Amino acid sequence: MLDFIKGWSRRAALPPGSLVHVGRRRVQTPSATVTYYNGQGRRVVENAGPGDVAPVADEVCWLRVRGLHDLELIRGLGQRLNLHPMLLEDVVEATQRPKVEEFADYLFVVLRLLRFDQQTAVISEEQLSLVLGRGWVATFEESDDTPLDLVAQRIAQRRGRIAEMGADYLAYAIIDVMIDSNFGVLEAFGESLDAIEDQVLANPSEASAKALYHFKGQIIHLRRVLWPLREVVNFIARGDSGFFSQPVWPFLRDVADHALHVLDAADAIREQATGLMELHLGALGNRTNEVMKVLTIMASIFIPLTFIAGVYGMNFEYMPELRLHYGYPAVLAAMAAVAAGLIIYFRHKKWL
Amino acid sequence: MLDFIKGWSRRAALPPGSLVHVGRRRVQTPSATVTYYNGQGRRVVENAGPGDVAPVADEVCWLRVRGLHDLELIRGLGQRLNLHPMLLEDVVEATQRPKVEEFADYLFVVLRLLRFDQQTAVISEEQLSLVLGRGWVATFEESDDTPLDLVAQRIAQRRGRIAEMGADYLAYAIIDVMIDSNFGVLEAFGESLDAIEDQVLANPSEASAKALYHFKGQIIHLRRVLWPLREVVNFIARGDSGFFSQPVWPFLRDVADHALHVLDAADAIREQATGLMELHLGALGNRTNEVMKVLTIMASIFIPLTFIAGVYGMNFEYMPELRLHYGYPAVLAAMAAVAAGLIIYFRHKKWL
Amino acid sequence: MLDFIKGWSRRAALPPGSLVHVGRRRVQTPSATVTYYNGQGRRVVENAGPGDVAPVADEVCWLRVRGLHDLELIRGLGQRLNLHPMLLEDVVEATQRPKVEEFADYLFVVLRLLRFDQQTAVISEEQLSLVLGRGWVATFEESDDTPLDLVAQRIAQRRGRIAEMGADYLAYAIIDVMIDSNFGVLEAFGESLDAIEDQVLANPSEASAKALYHFKGQIIHLRRVLWPLREVVNFIARGDSGFFSQPVWPFLRDVADHALHVLDAADAIREQATGLMELHLGALGNRTNEVMKVLTIMASIFIPLTFIAGVYGMNFEYMPELRLHYGYPAVLAAMAAVAAGLIIYFRHKKWL
Amino acid sequence: MLDFIKGWSRRAALPPGSLVHVGRRRVQTPSATVTYYNGQGRRVVENAGPGDVAPVADEVCWLRVRGLHDLELIRGLGQRLNLHPMLLEDVVEATQRPKVEEFADYLFVVLRLLRFDQQTAVISEEQLSLVLGRGWVATFEESDDTPLDLVAQRIAQRRGRIAEMGADYLAYAIIDVMIDSNFGVLEAFGESLDAIEDQVLANPSEASAKALYHFKGQIIHLRRVLWPLREVVNFIARGDSGFFSQPVWPFLRDVADHALHVLDAADAIREQATGLMELHLGALGNRTNEVMKVLTIMASIFIPLTFIAGVYGMNFEYMPELRLHYGYPAVLAAMAAVAAGLIIYFRHKKWL
Amino acid sequence: MLDFIKGWSRRAALPPGSLVHVGRRRVQTPSATVTYYNGQGRRVVENAGPGDVAPVADEVCWLRVRGLHDLELIRGLGQRLNLHPMLLEDVVEATQRPKVEEFADYLFVVLRLLRFDQQTAVISEEQLSLVLGRGWVATFEESDDTPLDLVAQRIAQRRGRIAEMGADYLAYAIIDVMIDSNFGVLEAFGESLDAIEDQVLANPSEASAKALYHFKGQIIHLRRVLWPLREVVNFIARGDSGFFSQPVWPFLRDVADHALHVLDAADAIREQATGLMELHLGALGNRTNEVMKVLTIMASIFIPLTFIAGVYGMNFEYMPELRLHYGYPAVLAAMAAVAAGLIIYFRHKKWL
Ligand SMILES: [Mg+2]
Ligand SMILES: [Mg+2]
Ligand SMILES: [Mg+2]
Ligand SMILES: [Mg+2]
Ligand SMILES: [Mg+2]
Ligand SMILES: [Mg+2]
Ligand SMILES: [Mg+2]
Ligand SMILES: [Mg+2]
Ligand SMILES: [Mg+2]
Ligand SMILES: [Mg+2]
Ligand SMILES: [Mg+2]
Ligand SMILES: [Mg+2]
Ligand SMILES: [Mg+2]
Ligand SMILES: [Mg+2]
Ligand SMILES: [Mg+2]
Ligand SMILES: [Mg+2]
Ligand SMILES: [Mg+2]
Ligand SMILES: [Mg+2]
Ligand SMILES: [Mg+2]
Ligand SMILES: [Mg+2]
Ligand SMILES: [Mg+2]
Ligand SMILES: [Mg+2]
Ligand SMILES: [Mg+2]
Ligand SMILES: [Mg+2]
Ligand SMILES: [Mg+2]
Ligand SMILES: [Mg+2]
Ligand SMILES: [Mg+2]
Ligand SMILES: [Mg+2]
Ligand SMILES: [Mg+2]
Ligand SMILES: [Mg+2]
Ligand SMILES: [Mg+2]
Repeated sequence: MLDFIKGWSRRAALPPGSLVHVGRRRVQTPSATVTYYNGQGRRVVENAGPGDVAPVADEVCWLRVRGLHDLELIRGLGQRLNLHPMLLEDVVEATQRPKVEEFADYLFVVLRLLRFDQQTAVISEEQLSLVLGRGWVATFEESDDTPLDLVAQRIAQRRGRIAEMGADYLAYAIIDVMIDSNFGVLEAFGESLDAIEDQVLANPSEASAKALYHFKGQIIHLRRVLWPLREVVNFIARGDSGFFSQPVWPFLRDVADHALHVLDAADAIREQATGLMELHLGALGNRTNEVMKVLTIMASIFIPLTFIAGVYGMNFEYMPELRLHYGYPAVLAAMAAVAAGLIIYFRHKKWL
Repeated sequence: MLDFIKGWSRRAALPPGSLVHVGRRRVQTPSATVTYYNGQGRRVVENAGPGDVAPVADEVCWLRVRGLHDLELIRGLGQRLNLHPMLLEDVVEATQRPKVEEFADYLFVVLRLLRFDQQTAVISEEQLSLVLGRGWVATFEESDDTPLDLVAQRIAQRRGRIAEMGADYLAYAIIDVMIDSNFGVLEAFGESLDAIEDQVLANPSEASAKALYHFKGQIIHLRRVLWPLREVVNFIARGDSGFFSQPVWPFLRDVADHALHVLDAADAIREQATGLMELHLGALGNRTNEVMKVLTIMASIFIPLTFIAGVYGMNFEYMPELRLHYGYPAVLAAMAAVAAGLIIYFRHKKWL
Repeated sequence: MLDFIKGWSRRAALPPGSLVHVGRRRVQTPSATVTYYNGQGRRVVENAGPGDVAPVADEVCWLRVRGLHDLELIRGLGQRLNLHPMLLEDVVEATQRPKVEEFADYLFVVLRLLRFDQQTAVISEEQLSLVLGRGWVATFEESDDTPLDLVAQRIAQRRGRIAEMGADYLAYAIIDVMIDSNFGVLEAFGESLDAIEDQVLANPSEASAKALYHFKGQIIHLRRVLWPLREVVNFIARGDSGFFSQPVWPFLRDVADHALHVLDAADAIREQATGLMELHLGALGNRTNEVMKVLTIMASIFIPLTFIAGVYGMNFEYMPELRLHYGYPAVLAAMAAVAAGLIIYFRHKKWL
Repeated sequence: MLDFIKGWSRRAALPPGSLVHVGRRRVQTPSATVTYYNGQGRRVVENAGPGDVAPVADEVCWLRVRGLHDLELIRGLGQRLNLHPMLLEDVVEATQRPKVEEFADYLFVVLRLLRFDQQTAVISEEQLSLVLGRGWVATFEESDDTPLDLVAQRIAQRRGRIAEMGADYLAYAIIDVMIDSNFGVLEAFGESLDAIEDQVLANPSEASAKALYHFKGQIIHLRRVLWPLREVVNFIARGDSGFFSQPVWPFLRDVADHALHVLDAADAIREQATGLMELHLGALGNRTNEVMKVLTIMASIFIPLTFIAGVYGMNFEYMPELRLHYGYPAVLAAMAAVAAGLIIYFRHKKWL
Repeated sequence: MLDFIKGWSRRAALPPGSLVHVGRRRVQTPSATVTYYNGQGRRVVENAGPGDVAPVADEVCWLRVRGLHDLELIRGLGQRLNLHPMLLEDVVEATQRPKVEEFADYLFVVLRLLRFDQQTAVISEEQLSLVLGRGWVATFEESDDTPLDLVAQRIAQRRGRIAEMGADYLAYAIIDVMIDSNFGVLEAFGESLDAIEDQVLANPSEASAKALYHFKGQIIHLRRVLWPLREVVNFIARGDSGFFSQPVWPFLRDVADHALHVLDAADAIREQATGLMELHLGALGNRTNEVMKVLTIMASIFIPLTFIAGVYGMNFEYMPELRLHYGYPAVLAAMAAVAAGLIIYFRHKKWL
């Protein structure tokens, strides 16, 4: 439940600004790549070290770190770009909430990448830290396979306008693919709710209630990650921080729109889950009612009849009816009459 | 459930500003019409191309595009009017939330047209994009048959003050008919809830619970579309964007009033549905209670009697009562006394 | 449910500013009265037409229109006072939400008069539109018998300070009696809830659940009318619109206080209704429980006894017990022991 | 329920500013006391009239009125201090919400004194109105025995700093004891909830549900009185009204803290009550379940056995088993086997 | 429940600013320590009195008081540092809500230290008061063993940057360890909820419902302490109070982040508990349903059979079937047919 605060109590004794990696190791060996590009061309430095990071005036410089547990590398790159120790602490403590923080020389953005495992119906998350400086962008990813590859491809293949624009557009493009990656997750998540819905509509059982409970736990998780997005994109879309130039503003507003769409989707899923729980409870009540009716009808009809049979099963010496020739058929007729009366009564009550 | 984000994950790989039509094709062939009018007269260009769009000083120019899948046409018209690529992206990706966005030279408004299918009790929606420039309005509709026809008729028949006024009044008139179109939808939707209410009041069943669940799903849908309206109309009604002249302000406030009314109605429907679900659950509990009472009364009365009969049905050789001449009537009398006692007890408990 | 948007879909095709009366005709023939008064005296023009409305510097002029379906009269009076067509549209479309709207030369206030029919437990409403200009007030009532009569009487009888003060005080006095008229309605409404409470406390039935459901529907209605009051009176009590002079401000704050009181009362009623529904559901569960206990005790005690009797009712030839002289009393004793054991068990469980 | 608006509908016909006492008469004869004091000494005028109220520069003047139904006295004192008629109306209409209102020459504060009757578990309230002018304070109490006596004692006994400070400190000291008086009420109220909790934990019954319902009604009452406090103390603690000098600000912030504490306590009580209702409903469900299990086990075990006994109680002439010597013990053994099988089954289901 | 207001009603009669210790005595003898340090070195005065507190320009002075019931000591130290009497009142009345208060010469911060007793599942709390002046910090702890020891160690061991920085950084470091101490509490608390979850998933009982109720009571407690944190850290992180220098701002923002994380965790726990209660109620309904089905099936099958047996157990003289040679097997076959029919019916209903 509280995975997102696990590990924090252990590091509480350390002084602020201590670099401690918190989170799973999702790549074998962390590495850094630096890409310089502009309208004319592109050059890439693989396995870069601090010395390879040298932003210049007429090129965009993108430092891309994948894997967070090489603390030496990250400290070195951080010093090269003059990053604040508390910023680096946040980068490697990969449990941050989505946020945006303004420093004097750069803007710091934390986003989280959601993944949904359809087998186990569990949502997991990874952190993306992005720093936008004047002419450069640094990103820190937890794993190898993230939506940022799409942006790298666009630069390599010179698709769209990205190559012609500045570092602020690069930051926008990265945020854009991160936000948009949520749509696939939400679609898969929504389908998983639709499957539970089918179960509940067909036959509400304890298993479907437990599935719904598990699902709602995932929604709590989801909202914790998505809610702070609203603030983050609003800050960015206001465009008044000075780190984004005016031509990029309409693009930022698009990101904000998409974030609202994501939140709309998360809300819709949550309300559907709530409605489904209600339906489940109602259906249970209904079924209990139905079961009760069968019992009541069976018992109410046969118990009086059995009583009558019991009366004439008594062994008194003087029971004149037992001697009557038509006593037996008369009693059977009386029983049929009682049964018919009760059936009519139950029909009248609409139980039959 | 999440139709409104369907298709987005597929296009996440494309660079921003790519024109991709998202949504059903609701007309055979998209087409554009340009209408120029002022107090003196009106002229209409059917099947217009980019060259036909030429706003002039003393006429209002209304470009009306119906059908969104002719991307060439929309790109051409967009270039003619200098529309931003991200704006055009929103126009053809017909899943936008209602919104208003200010650009330097025009105001961009997205609204959604609701339709309610009374047969299936399903709400569907279409997008209307409107751009208000200096002296011109461009609208992009998904289908052929929308409330904008009312506005076009008024211009053609010179009804009301529309022909005497500017492009801002035209934009107002379009927004007005769009907002007002919601009233018919809400009326039909509310009637469909009233039908469920009748069912629940008469006989709460699993079918009525499922209908209510489906209905609540539609309300989630409805609110997602209607809630952003508040912001949109508030922005417009403040009248401080400079795209609306002062004489149009009282009209814009009327639109805002109507939007609040629409939201009031949606809220009222939602609360009624919530109350109805409560009533349903309560009624179920009540009926279970009633069924139980019948069972309890029948069983409690006859089980002791049957026991007594069982006692005198035993085959012991020495059971003196069996020999008594008045044994049988005495036992019957005892049974009647027991039954009467129990009936009095149940009456006392108000179960009978 | 949605009475308050009925009729709007029909008029959606009309151009803005068309005068169409929406609402019931609550008087036979609409008429206008104009009252001129100041500290010196008062003169009244009955059955006034537009020509009779002539505000002058040293008198307060109150135009009072009762009945809204004489559109010619209202259009004429409106033109005389220079009222905006959209304002007149709101006046006759008597389904407006409470609101306050500032125009250059007057302030436009819409309030709603609530009435509660104790027979049917239904809340109904009428619209009061008020326009406060410089030196004049115009009011538009739907019916003949409204709290405004109290204000007219005070002017006629020169009670209180009203005759000495200006048009702004007149507007205040009218808003004051309108707000205060809600107290009577809320008292009666609250008493009607108290009656349902008595029912639920005595014997929760399906009828009391339905009454509660109906009651909650009326609360939805009530809140829709009362909630916008908060905004309206806050606007007025801020006193910064320039239409109210400083000596009137303490009076306006009193109105705001009373409106908050009204909203408090509505909230209290709503929460009581919610608590009552909870009590109802709990009581149902309790009663089901009690019914179950009776059944369980009766069945659990007699079913084993009946079984024992059944055993000795079997017709086997070799059943030695049947021959024993004390077989019968021994079995009766065993039965009594079983029953006593079960009774002790149920007492131990506190079911008896 | 709605005691706090009782009486208002009756006075709706009166002109604003009419003095009408609303509320119970809690003292025999209303009276006024004026206390003048400073660092040097103190003098008290009992049974004061308007002429006794004469604030001077170097003394604090405290006019204390107890009992609100001597309207002549209050009107006279009000005129002496130049109090606005609407303020006096609020003073005697002792149903005001807590509020603070700034006039040009004084600050008007309304607070409510809570009392809790542990016998009936009913919360009642009285009004305290306070006016803070330059160098004077006027207070209007409904009854004889209020926390203000503590303040009067401190002045008389020269305890604490009160005698050395100004009228603003006196106003603070009064508000302070009023706010702090809530703690005792909340403690007693919370204990009354703890008693209900004990009942629910031991044995949830209809009586405990009704007690909880009554309790929640009192919470509605409580919150209506306490919620407005937040605004009142925030206004006062901001200290920007000019009626409080800077040395008094830290004291005012303390009052605000205590008010927040009171609200915290009220919230905690409310949430506990909600949780208790949930527990009650869950416990009911649990008990119904338990009762059902006993019935099901008893019935399921004995009904088949009784059937077997019934079979061998039939009177057919040709029933070979009846002749068998070991028929009877064989049947008894079969019955024991059936019973054992069912017991094993129920154990397996964890019902036994 | 309301421990946090206990004791307040007793002290309501005292004048403001009276020092009264409220809370448990958590140390034997209160004592004060003063630490002076800067980049060069450190000196510590144990068992300090007022005379030992002498802030100087080039050293940070940390006065650390442990134990709050030596009122003389606290009054003396407070006078030395010129602390306001109301501040000292708050320090010893250890029931304050978390808050931050600006005085002219110092900033006053109250935080609460949570502890969770895993045995009893009870959350307890202690108060930490912190005053940040120019060049000095004073802290007041209730007990001996608090996270502040971590900060003292860092200064002693010259770990991290604390020794090189000013009093504002010391205040930050203290707030930081206080906020971070919540993570351990929340982890343990969350695990205790996970244990209840296991119970509910396995077998929902009255005991698990009571555990959940107790747990929710602790959450109310938790939130009351944590919610005010948001305001406190926001105030501090804005950094505009002038008590924190700009180099400390990024550190303060980190504290604010962690506080939000703590609140996220508390919210997640609360929502999980709510979902669990829902699951509990649903599971109860499910089980009642299952129990009912067993009863209904058993009773519905055997009651008709027993009736048939009863009929042929009647003692009428003329019952021709009894004479038939195959009467008995025919009746047995009929019984088997009835039972089979009912079993097929129940299978059809998916009850078997
Ligand atoms: Mg730390
Ligand atoms: Mg951190
Ligand atoms: Mg997060
Ligand atoms: Mg995008
Ligand atoms: Mg877009
Ligand atoms: Mg939604
Ligand atoms: Mg994209
Ligand atoms: Mg888009
Ligand atoms: Mg939308
Ligand atoms: Mg309209
Ligand atoms: Mg209007
Ligand atoms: Mg409704
Ligand atoms: Mg219209
Ligand atoms: Mg209208
Ligand atoms: Mg309304
Ligand atoms: Mg009034
Ligand atoms: Mg509403
Ligand atoms: Mg008043
Ligand atoms: Mg109430
Ligand atoms: Mg009045
Ligand atoms: Mg009043
Ligand atoms: Mg109140
Ligand atoms: Mg106090
Ligand atoms: Mg304090
Ligand atoms: Mg609380
Ligand atoms: Mg005090
Ligand atoms: Mg205090
Ligand atoms: Mg606290
Ligand atoms: Mg920290
Ligand atoms: Mg951080
Ligand atoms: Mg959360």
